Amino acid sequence: MNTRLDAQMAFLNEADKLKSVLRATTLCDGSRHENSGEHSWHIALYALTLGEHAPESVDINRVIKMLLLHDLVEIDAGDAPIFGDHDISAMEVKEAKAADRIFGLLPDDQNEELRAIWNEFEAAQTPDAIFAKSLDRFQPPNQNLISNGGSWTDYGVTYETIESRVGSKVAKGAPTLWTWLAPQIKAWFKN
Amino acid sequence: MNTRLDAQMAFLNEADKLKSVLRATTLCDGSRHENSGEHSWHIALYALTLGEHAPESVDINRVIKMLLLHDLVEIDAGDAPIFGDHDISAMEVKEAKAADRIFGLLPDDQNEELRAIWNEFEAAQTPDAIFAKSLDRFQPPNQNLISNGGSWTDYGVTYETIESRVGSKVAKGAPTLWTWLAPQIKAWFKN
Repeated sequence: MNTRLDAQMAFLNEADKLKSVLRATTLCDGSRHENSGEHSWHIALYALTLGEHAPESVDINRVIKMLLLHDLVEIDAGDAPIFGDHDISAMEVKEAKAADRIFGLLPDDQNEELRAIWNEFEAAQTPDAIFAKSLDRFQPPNQNLISNGGSWTDYGVTYETIESRVGSKVAKGAPTLWTWLAPQIKAWFKN
Repeated sequence: MNTRLDAQMAFLNEADKLKSVLRATTLCDGSRHENSGEHSWHIALYALTLGEHAPESVDINRVIKMLLLHDLVEIDAGDAPIFGDHDISAMEVKEAKAADRIFGLLPDDQNEELRAIWNEFEAAQTPDAIFAKSLDRFQPPNQNLISNGGSWTDYGVTYETIESRVGSKVAKGAPTLWTWLAPQIKAWFKN
């Protein structure tokens, strides 16, 4: 009998379902849509690799934890594509309910601890959360460039839309990354 | 011009290919084989959740980094299933060559830093690496139990084989986890 471990494993087994939530972005080779589990791995690796482009006060270990947890609510609430049209406040209610259920599988102290990290990410006010959000927006355009359009083509977006919905968020937490990426996206739209 | 960021992004874009490397284990719902990208996310989440079951000297943040990186070599070397028959030393040569190429995409200082973490994982001698290896072996049997057999059925293994190839490794770094899991696997084989 180990009821604490039972609860932790119920949470980890439930998390497996994130591997079946599909995102708008495809893999770089365009072969299929990316799922939110592998996306979460990839951007945690982004954090590990690109930490030097974060402001000095950012704690990369906390950012990695945030990114490992950030999409779990999609198991219940689904993914809301960046260029999609959705009711933001309805989505927030759905996601909060999902967080109640999913983090609620954990022992109480861990529910509280991990939920606080997720809440912090969602609120996007602390330096760690702002940088984590920047990485979450920075990965898809890189994959779209390599797959030659990806979700940009599917959603018929313009450079201006990308600048307002993606660029503003990337630039807020990681200006160096946006300075590097923006000209590449502009060049892609010109061709 | 930012050649340092060019190199970091070449590494991160290459890493995307790990999402296309399939493992022997299936998702919990049995719908398809798991890929090594989403597996890496899942066991990093295991580390985040199960850290209290590690020996006190283990640094969970380092374990998480190890697990984010541990399978990247499979992009070139492929996955070697636990119950498969493969030439271990030939595999080690292939993986070292893959590590040269893939971590070699990074700026020199980061190549050195991340390669050292990967080497430490492979050598499995430090407390962090031993715990990381335990989690890497602990996840698949949990998924097999839920999917009602998974890779155990595909490879026609017995409880004894699991105990020697999986149990010994899990128990070495995380005895509590093996004590919790072993009776469940035994019960599954009896039914």
